[in-house]
Amino acid sequence: MSDKTALVPATHTVPPAKFSHGVKKGNILQVAGQVGFLPHEEGKAPTPAGPTLREQTLQTLANVKAILEEGGASWDDVMMIRVYLTDVDHFAEMNALYNAYFEEQGLTEPPAARTTVYVGLPAGLLIEIDALAVLG
Amino acid sequence: MSDKTALVPATHTVPPAKFSHGVKKGNILQVAGQVGFLPHEEGKAPTPAGPTLREQTLQTLANVKAILEEGGASWDDVMMIRVYLTDVDHFAEMNALYNAYFEEQGLTEPPAARTTVYVGLPAGLLIEIDALAVLG
Amino acid sequence: MSDKTALVPATHTVPPAKFSHGVKKGNILQVAGQVGFLPHEEGKAPTPAGPTLREQTLQTLANVKAILEEGGASWDDVMMIRVYLTDVDHFAEMNALYNAYFEEQGLTEPPAARTTVYVGLPAGLLIEIDALAVLG
Repeated sequence: MSDKTALVPATHTVPPAKFSHGVKKGNILQVAGQVGFLPHEEGKAPTPAGPTLREQTLQTLANVKAILEEGGASWDDVMMIRVYLTDVDHFAEMNALYNAYFEEQGLTEPPAARTTVYVGLPAGLLIEIDALAVLG
Repeated sequence: MSDKTALVPATHTVPPAKFSHGVKKGNILQVAGQVGFLPHEEGKAPTPAGPTLREQTLQTLANVKAILEEGGASWDDVMMIRVYLTDVDHFAEMNALYNAYFEEQGLTEPPAARTTVYVGLPAGLLIEIDALAVLG
Repeated sequence: MSDKTALVPATHTVPPAKFSHGVKKGNILQVAGQVGFLPHEEGKAPTPAGPTLREQTLQTLANVKAILEEGGASWDDVMMIRVYLTDVDHFAEMNALYNAYFEEQGLTEPPAARTTVYVGLPAGLLIEIDALAVLG
């Protein structure tokens, strides 16, 4: 008996391959790596919210949140956030954006754990984030 | 009372350090990072299936699957697949291979979430994949 | 009804952003990415245990362990260890340190799964490690 469900916010672009933006099974919810793409518009290719770290970070966090909510979860349920940046020099600015964002979210639980590493991403993308949540 | 078990397919090479190719505890199954090594042959060093992305991707997916099956799981139970590539230019080809592979697997559940990032890997290796599954 | 708790060893430096060094909820414990910082000293900036891979690896493992213990867990409960190195040439030495360390820990359960990839890290840091544990 499985209750694995795909979490597919209407705002999201179709994944570029056979994977789900989010999946939930039992009390575990996994959000796939999100980037700063704007909400999907019919017939339009995926488009980043802008060229800056600020624009992309905020859009990426919004994209993760939409998937959490699609699964009946919230940031409070998130255990782990993985942040992939392309440039070590972006760490301080990302942290400032991250802190301000979560300040606004009004968490009532302790913040998630986090790992930040510096990798390559497709051209034009400065940040990617995925998340693991435990519900209940 | 713990029921943590190591998942060690007979086909797999001995890990290069004190880790398990897979572990299962309760309903959680974690597959370690797999690369495109051919099934183990006595007295032979680990050998990639070939130099191409195609060969390594298909062998890597087979290696992950063997561990899932060793733990009584299948691709349908997988929540998250992490794909590590060494070259952004491999993204499209990897996606095509990935899609064709999962098409053939005949999943009956929604596909897993996925994150793909571009990192360094040991010389000769083009792809590494790990996976988290929730059983039951 | 949530029992999400932050795991904050007294020895740890304050995280550079709004995240927890570890979180536990139900039977899941997630340790955030740890680096080789020495135990926190009042009024002193985070300082690596030393410039060598050996010093940083051992300190990083100690930092992960402190968080596990803060959550009532041990290495035996760990399912997955993610190792981030900055240099492929460090693989063999890291494995030797890793093996010797876990030999000393006297695990009674199978070792965790592991993925090792090569990424960028802030200047001076050679290794980062995070871990997922399942308790009970």
